[in-house]
Amino acid sequence: MCESNAYLIKGGEEELVLESVESIEATGGGVTLTSLFGEEKRIRARIKALSLVEHKIVLEPLGAES
Amino acid sequence: MCESNAYLIKGGEEELVLESVESIEATGGGVTLTSLFGEEKRIRARIKALSLVEHKIVLEPLGAES
Repeated sequence: MCESNAYLIKGGEEELVLESVESIEATGGGVTLTSLFGEEKRIRARIKALSLVEHKIVLEPLGAES
Repeated sequence: MCESNAYLIKGGEEELVLESVESIEATGGGVTLTSLFGEEKRIRARIKALSLVEHKIVLEPLGAES
């Protein structure tokens, strides 16, 4: 399976916010993550990077534009 | 493997921009896609949605905020 873990950058560190993420949708003012198990999480962040080989999604809080 | 195809929304349709995408990085003013085969593409777009089960990444041109 191809699910990935989603991490949010906080104070320079990556904090796990949701495991086994199956899909992500960018909505006004954030992203909605959905896990394989049907768990849904809305976060005020944008997708900064993702690596499908590492199964990793990195989110950056909105307002922290680089 | 978990690589996905990346599509760019153009005129309401999804146009394939890169196959076998392995990683994506959001940079100032766009995203950089890298394929499993080392091909790299920079696009002035943001990630609108992704489905890891469907192996699909959907990009939206910058300036077309919903």
